[in-house]
Amino acid sequence: MKASCDPVQTLHEEPAEAEVVSHRLMLRAGFVRKLAGGVYSYLPMAVRALRKVESIIREEMNSAGGQEVLLPALQPSDLWEKTGRWQAYGPELFRLHDRHERAFALGPTHEEVITDLVSQIIRSYRQLPFLAYQIQTKFRDERRPRFGILRGREFIMKDAYSFSASEENARQIYARMQEAYGRIFLRLGLDHRMVEADSGLIGGNLSHEFMVMADSGEDTVVTCEKCFWASNIEKAPDARVCPVCGSALTSRTAIEVGHVFYLGHKYSAPMETTFLDSAGKEVPFFMGCYGIGVSRILAATIEQSHDDKGIIWPVAMAPYRTAVLPLGPGMSERREVLSLLESLESLWPGEAYFDDREIRPGMKFQDADLRGFPFQVILGDRHVDKGNGEVKIRRTGERLVLPLRDIPALLSARVQGILSES
Amino acid sequence: MKASCDPVQTLHEEPAEAEVVSHRLMLRAGFVRKLAGGVYSYLPMAVRALRKVESIIREEMNSAGGQEVLLPALQPSDLWEKTGRWQAYGPELFRLHDRHERAFALGPTHEEVITDLVSQIIRSYRQLPFLAYQIQTKFRDERRPRFGILRGREFIMKDAYSFSASEENARQIYARMQEAYGRIFLRLGLDHRMVEADSGLIGGNLSHEFMVMADSGEDTVVTCEKCFWASNIEKAPDARVCPVCGSALTSRTAIEVGHVFYLGHKYSAPMETTFLDSAGKEVPFFMGCYGIGVSRILAATIEQSHDDKGIIWPVAMAPYRTAVLPLGPGMSERREVLSLLESLESLWPGEAYFDDREIRPGMKFQDADLRGFPFQVILGDRHVDKGNGEVKIRRTGERLVLPLRDIPALLSARVQGILSES
Repeated sequence: MKASCDPVQTLHEEPAEAEVVSHRLMLRAGFVRKLAGGVYSYLPMAVRALRKVESIIREEMNSAGGQEVLLPALQPSDLWEKTGRWQAYGPELFRLHDRHERAFALGPTHEEVITDLVSQIIRSYRQLPFLAYQIQTKFRDERRPRFGILRGREFIMKDAYSFSASEENARQIYARMQEAYGRIFLRLGLDHRMVEADSGLIGGNLSHEFMVMADSGEDTVVTCEKCFWASNIEKAPDARVCPVCGSALTSRTAIEVGHVFYLGHKYSAPMETTFLDSAGKEVPFFMGCYGIGVSRILAATIEQSHDDKGIIWPVAMAPYRTAVLPLGPGMSERREVLSLLESLESLWPGEAYFDDREIRPGMKFQDADLRGFPFQVILGDRHVDKGNGEVKIRRTGERLVLPLRDIPALLSARVQGILSES
Repeated sequence: MKASCDPVQTLHEEPAEAEVVSHRLMLRAGFVRKLAGGVYSYLPMAVRALRKVESIIREEMNSAGGQEVLLPALQPSDLWEKTGRWQAYGPELFRLHDRHERAFALGPTHEEVITDLVSQIIRSYRQLPFLAYQIQTKFRDERRPRFGILRGREFIMKDAYSFSASEENARQIYARMQEAYGRIFLRLGLDHRMVEADSGLIGGNLSHEFMVMADSGEDTVVTCEKCFWASNIEKAPDARVCPVCGSALTSRTAIEVGHVFYLGHKYSAPMETTFLDSAGKEVPFFMGCYGIGVSRILAATIEQSHDDKGIIWPVAMAPYRTAVLPLGPGMSERREVLSLLESLESLWPGEAYFDDREIRPGMKFQDADLRGFPFQVILGDRHVDKGNGEVKIRRTGERLVLPLRDIPALLSARVQGILSES
């Protein structure tokens, strides 16, 4: 991508509307723009990051035996009345009427729809288990939408639902999803904890949250830094010591990005959705549900990973892996520079952001730091005349001068190192 | 994918609700289920086909210089009032109020939102042109939703919007998008025509539709089978001869799957969205917009490509490329069969649907024909004992017996042939 073909520019002023650092940096870096309270448009760089997050989630859901479905946002009110949530959800549920005055909810979650669907397609225990997931836009009329896409009214979720013939199998899938979630957040490069949690409006009696550690988080997590045991503050023991290893516990703030629930019969019983078990008896499904806040991950990542210059993207979800910064007149057309670009392109297709604008070097550095690309390749006369270029690692600030032809191999080795750590 | 792990079964009865063949076959094959009038849930095989269509569209949009964005479904009414469409759209526009009684539309299209967004990010002709696209769920409260996902109230569109500094550039992008659309439908393997068309509610004075030829289509297209000139019936000349080559014209029915519009100042003028041209003067953007009915493509494909046994998917969008059908007890565990599966898996990862169910062969054939996988690999004792297998080509009915180890190479060669034709 050439910066000269990118209409989206960074903002130098501090946006007045932003209350938290991720919101401020996403606005300044040109990632999102507000359309209405809690409703945001995603600009191209944010979409690139979103797609990378989605693709890791999709891979791990498929590996865990999930099958992708796509369920409607428009949900008839009668389904929600069956479970009592048409009333219970209150004003957070967006409601509308169609031209025939039939009432619909705009789905904030899909337990009712998937349970109804599964009751139509599954009749026998032989068709179980079934683990369905989707990556989709959700709607929730938050009383106080804020913090940009951290707490929006329209947002992207991965939601998954499992249907089992026995409690034992349902708990096995629950455990498999806990592992898959761990792998997802590890691959995304996030410092995170899984904690025991309350079940809230979704229901059930066993649930865990996945928390991205961040100083600005609204949740408090009690963690043992020795054995990695962790809990939501509401579920933590009064004793100030770790129930596993006896070490002292610490309180840290975090942002919830995932939540898994063991539901049992919570939805299948009131909706009277049953299958025939091996004895030929009609019994309700054992269910679980599993959510990840896909768009929220972008903001949570920035809350965790930034400095006073801007965002520091983990490699796995950076909009572009490398910023190539030719400095001074004519540099963006020099043969050595174009040949380096070509080899970067064959290493990682589409992953180089080439800042070919005719602006002063300081602005290129500022923009690359603000947008948080993991690597910067800085190409000034002094180095290029000798066949060299300078590589700056955004996270550490480390700088290396090396022959231009060795740069792709260096970047590749660094990424291998980062990915093998996670 | 193992059929024994797939809870979705085919239906043998004719579904009463289906009026057209694509709707009937999608229900019978287990691709979709109705949630409400014009509102459908997509089951895993349909999602696989959708993702393939989306990925071809995304590639061609990126090649045409498009940048992916993601715009909200919730759109404040004041934007729609500016262009007069809050009234003009009538009851087809889903409307709702949030908890603060603010009115929103559920986006059936995004001209207002993107124009408003672009006016915030683009100030100068130097930032132009900008071609933004998204692949997203849209909402339209059809008076009479019908034909399954052919005319739904919630559906998936690819919509794109171009912003140019001159009419000349806007028309160049229009032409580039016409070419990209042609490539998309060719790569999808569809018999299609581009025709001149009316602009309708979207507006502007130049527009073309992309039509998938199908006997059941609701649109009539006048085509010259000699030079491939074609037109929407409303725009066709009275003379019954081709205006390009003078040959006789024929009328054929078709389904609209794409539509491109040159908009000029239609939205930018009423919304007063301007940029500074090279002379420093405030002028409105020259715009174009470009839609593809992504979910509709699945149904249109089936209308064009089926027989009395079921769907015949083009290779490019088949949910799975190959059905592997072991026949008789124990066959699904034989070493030769598992080793064939492994080599098919390394040829096309995830593209084999392995029907390991213990059911009679006739049912396996019926299901594979109904679901329309392009290739069937039939493995009965008689052939496998000699180290052979039978390949059936779904579209032609052609059958070939060949050594098991040569099957992947045959399938690969056939697909190369099919793809190089398109």
